[in-house]
Amino acid sequence: MQDRLEDVKAQVQAALDEAMAGFPPGELTDAMRYACIGGKRLRAFLVMESARLFGLTDREALPVAAAVEALHAYSLVHDDLPAMDDDDLRRGLPTCHVQWSEATAILAGDALQTLAFGLLSLHQIGTAEVRVALIRAFSEAVGARGMVWGQALDIAAETALEPLDIVAIKRLQSAKTGALIVFSATSGAIMAGEDTGPLTEYARNIGLAFQIQDDILDVIGDEAETGKRLNKDGAANKATFVSLLGLDGARDKARKLVRNAESALEPYGEAAGNLRDLARFIIERDA
Amino acid sequence: MQDRLEDVKAQVQAALDEAMAGFPPGELTDAMRYACIGGKRLRAFLVMESARLFGLTDREALPVAAAVEALHAYSLVHDDLPAMDDDDLRRGLPTCHVQWSEATAILAGDALQTLAFGLLSLHQIGTAEVRVALIRAFSEAVGARGMVWGQALDIAAETALEPLDIVAIKRLQSAKTGALIVFSATSGAIMAGEDTGPLTEYARNIGLAFQIQDDILDVIGDEAETGKRLNKDGAANKATFVSLLGLDGARDKARKLVRNAESALEPYGEAAGNLRDLARFIIERDA
Repeated sequence: MQDRLEDVKAQVQAALDEAMAGFPPGELTDAMRYACIGGKRLRAFLVMESARLFGLTDREALPVAAAVEALHAYSLVHDDLPAMDDDDLRRGLPTCHVQWSEATAILAGDALQTLAFGLLSLHQIGTAEVRVALIRAFSEAVGARGMVWGQALDIAAETALEPLDIVAIKRLQSAKTGALIVFSATSGAIMAGEDTGPLTEYARNIGLAFQIQDDILDVIGDEAETGKRLNKDGAANKATFVSLLGLDGARDKARKLVRNAESALEPYGEAAGNLRDLARFIIERDA
Repeated sequence: MQDRLEDVKAQVQAALDEAMAGFPPGELTDAMRYACIGGKRLRAFLVMESARLFGLTDREALPVAAAVEALHAYSLVHDDLPAMDDDDLRRGLPTCHVQWSEATAILAGDALQTLAFGLLSLHQIGTAEVRVALIRAFSEAVGARGMVWGQALDIAAETALEPLDIVAIKRLQSAKTGALIVFSATSGAIMAGEDTGPLTEYARNIGLAFQIQDDILDVIGDEAETGKRLNKDGAANKATFVSLLGLDGARDKARKLVRNAESALEPYGEAAGNLRDLARFIIERDA
């Protein structure tokens, strides 16, 4: 799986570089490129592997893979802003507003969202209905009923009188990070016009496991490894899966979710090997 | 034309309300709705009248009209942020970050951009190629080569050592406000698969005339009428069409542009009556 992840990384970086190649020189374009450096590209990997399950080639799925990574980059740039999470370190580098300015970071995030939709409109798979359905599913996943709603819940939680309970924190995670993961993992099925059910189930489970592992790493991780500031949640007295379930409880929960994710992949047999490996990687990673 | 403008306003407001009807209750949705209140809806009017030239109905064009207004609303919310233009008054009301918070304003703008693309994916006109072409043209107009680039140029101009010259200020305006106006005015032709040339020419001229009139109103206007803070450009020692051409020179230039815009409409004859009226309205308005 690591080879495939490296392969996807290289393809996505090339696609993003190509998409921005004709952009006007200046701080805005520089900041957009900067925001697209690095990252694990797990969402792009999900798109490419999801597409492969339905006989679609990397070349066909690449615009969609690049789109989810451009969208993810925008969300990180805006989340890191002083008015939001106020982070100064991301992927081991100064965050966008530290490196440039708040104004440039806001605009770079805005333009990366636009780029994501522009890339989505480039893919050449399927009928009109399929192509439009993909754009619609994407906008549902990342808008005011998906990712941005989750971020708004997260901001609201910071000023709430009571820490969130496990139901509320699951709902938050499912919107904030889960919706784009579900979109990524089901994109192949959407493009092929096939049932999205099993991949939705897979993605919900790994999305939650991913967040739990993030919470675990926030407590036991290494800033040099993760490339971001740690123990922010503890310092902010924020409810996390670790604070609610304990470290062992959180680990058990994540392992159970990964088993569920593996079961959801059964209809796809051997072809889903990389997706199975990814599920395990999510809780084994230390960054 | 005023009756038609009121009619478009009502249709677009209903479409935006309907699009947000199922959104989760809370500050984010409230702020998005708040940002969509009011406005002249000139861009929506352009979409509807452009569509009508090619035999498309209001019902068919409405998702596109609502999309350009959602996009415009997002751009205003982000432009008004403290890190950007730092405005406290818009459309006669406190700006979004004053009414709510900076974090909510950033997220509401983000989600309004997503909503715009979601609405665009709803329209039911034409072939797959046409529908995707419309989304692609929209992303070109509002991204890092269009509107957001113009806003970045505007921010850069504020800290530049020399005020901009007339070539640079035209380039800035053409990107910042012109590109979305061109998209709106040509959207009917794109949907119908017809030549966008004449409407592009029309839109470039009224877009520039609109900006010149804005600069004139910034000097001679009334804050109660315009619903926004005035003389900000003068206070910031920023080059404007008025500072570069003088008040009379700016008025002459705007009148000439409107005549060019009217000429560009000749291929459409009587059917373009409302678009002709709009061109004149743009330089006669006092708000």
